[in-house]
Amino acid sequence: MKRHKRKGIGNGEPFDEAAVTAKIVAAARKIPNSTGVRVGVGDDAAVWTPRADYEAILTSDWFLEGTHFLRNVHPAEAIGWKCLARAVSDVAAMGGEPRCFLLNLALPTPIAGNWLGQFLRGLVRASKKFECPLAGGDTSRGDRVEINVTVIGETNKDRAIRRSGARPGDKIFVSGRLGEAELGWRLIRRSRAASSSIRALLRKHLYPRPKLTLGKWLADKRAATAMMDLSDGLSSDLTRLCDASGVGARIFENKIPTAGPAFLREFRKRELRVAALHGGDDYELLFTASPVTASKIRAGLFNGGITEIGEVTSARGIKLVNCSGEEIVLTAGGWDPFRR
Amino acid sequence: MKRHKRKGIGNGEPFDEAAVTAKIVAAARKIPNSTGVRVGVGDDAAVWTPRADYEAILTSDWFLEGTHFLRNVHPAEAIGWKCLARAVSDVAAMGGEPRCFLLNLALPTPIAGNWLGQFLRGLVRASKKFECPLAGGDTSRGDRVEINVTVIGETNKDRAIRRSGARPGDKIFVSGRLGEAELGWRLIRRSRAASSSIRALLRKHLYPRPKLTLGKWLADKRAATAMMDLSDGLSSDLTRLCDASGVGARIFENKIPTAGPAFLREFRKRELRVAALHGGDDYELLFTASPVTASKIRAGLFNGGITEIGEVTSARGIKLVNCSGEEIVLTAGGWDPFRR
Repeated sequence: MKRHKRKGIGNGEPFDEAAVTAKIVAAARKIPNSTGVRVGVGDDAAVWTPRADYEAILTSDWFLEGTHFLRNVHPAEAIGWKCLARAVSDVAAMGGEPRCFLLNLALPTPIAGNWLGQFLRGLVRASKKFECPLAGGDTSRGDRVEINVTVIGETNKDRAIRRSGARPGDKIFVSGRLGEAELGWRLIRRSRAASSSIRALLRKHLYPRPKLTLGKWLADKRAATAMMDLSDGLSSDLTRLCDASGVGARIFENKIPTAGPAFLREFRKRELRVAALHGGDDYELLFTASPVTASKIRAGLFNGGITEIGEVTSARGIKLVNCSGEEIVLTAGGWDPFRR
Repeated sequence: MKRHKRKGIGNGEPFDEAAVTAKIVAAARKIPNSTGVRVGVGDDAAVWTPRADYEAILTSDWFLEGTHFLRNVHPAEAIGWKCLARAVSDVAAMGGEPRCFLLNLALPTPIAGNWLGQFLRGLVRASKKFECPLAGGDTSRGDRVEINVTVIGETNKDRAIRRSGARPGDKIFVSGRLGEAELGWRLIRRSRAASSSIRALLRKHLYPRPKLTLGKWLADKRAATAMMDLSDGLSSDLTRLCDASGVGARIFENKIPTAGPAFLREFRKRELRVAALHGGDDYELLFTASPVTASKIRAGLFNGGITEIGEVTSARGIKLVNCSGEEIVLTAGGWDPFRR
């Protein structure tokens, strides 16, 4: 990030690029740096020292007002948390650890004050949680809030888990419960001044937690043949993983972990099932494992929170065995920003 | 970049994220990859292998319609070239070599066809020229064209040149001629159907060339005490370099290299001088060197295109000795997106 110091030189306006950057620099100082960032915010570019025998994981993610969030619905603090969490999730999906990130932020001038402070509070919290310090980025003016986050991560050499390694006979697993983020999104639109019991149901939508521990464990043990994160919904993302691997899949509706029982106060069981199949934004992991590894996972090798939902097939396409035992074709019904 | 394959699954619309990504993937294939990108476009994240004994340079740059370019004025091919050139220039400014980049592109749906093809043509040309292959990124929908480019570069360990190393007595140098990009910007607004003689004057504005060879040479020889690229104009950028180093500067107006003689057909000499002081977008290098190194540079150690324009002072502030021999205070008059 270029640090533009213009105090005393400017034309007296209370707000300019230097003021925005100064706030970001102050926030960056709150984040411990022990991940190799040698030159951080304030120069033409950051300097980061990779570890020997590691490979770098590089990923960028848009987070755009009107497309990915609504400024009058989503708290600025949640936007700060989530813009980093989403990009870090791509590092988890390769089996890596985050090392640092670049923040690119375009803001309408009038909101740069309070909104920016709250946004940075959420961002700093996420940054500490994921041990991923701010190394740089760029600021500009925008008519809407436009965020792009680049995360640099690392894996041990040749351990990154790709989408393309699934083989017929492999078992299919997901982490966590699917659909809670989608249901939270519906709730937050419905009721803006939420009761505390509703607020608990919004957590996954507002403050997703990338599955870094699981991802790294799978990479270290070479336990997954293919992996990706669930950002656009199981039906869309499983289709992508299968396409990348040149295979198909058969999954069982009654095995798919749906939203927790608290959601049944607000939604019908059927809605939970649909959200688990097609709802986006969960940032859980979807992975495949050989039958031998799968039996070890079933025996409790990784402690907690993963569910086997089906198997990889040589026949292309995704088949869903529904709760009545019928096999139907599952079409991708997830989220695509160009088709809203 | 996540590769979303949805052919045959979608709702029959001719355009979606998969189509945009497919075009980008096809463009990426035209770029030779010999810089360590092991997993490129198409997975959750890219995997890049850093070289032993090198450090990574990380930089991101916004390039936004309405803020940094105008879609009805600037050719799509030039936008493609320049969005990468600007970010690569930050790597040059640290003395590094680019290794790969991430493209983040938000597009209004109706322009994604022809415009995108031309944009990618310019981007691929720049990518080949700078030996910087596309490794990933993200696409989304936007009401305007929104581009963010992250470039990953490398320098030999501890060789990156920062802004903060200038010391009193150091000599100040710039590469190239200053102000040509600013004057080109004025010309392109004036005359849209330009004659071939005018078109030659637009080159620096439309197709800037980051000074990679000079930057790397200065880093390899440890010849510069501080360096940055000239993106916002000499008066603004020299102020930043001096602030980062805790020093001031005295520069000589008659030593500053102004736009080439061809520009005198369109502008007065005085306009050339003002553009050289305050005009942005040149992507030349500004650096300081010790008196000993400076005398070697004067003796022709680096072949071509660098000019000594003044010296670093312990007194803060930037002084300009103008063409009449008067010393005046130079205030930063460059470009700030928040104050347009």
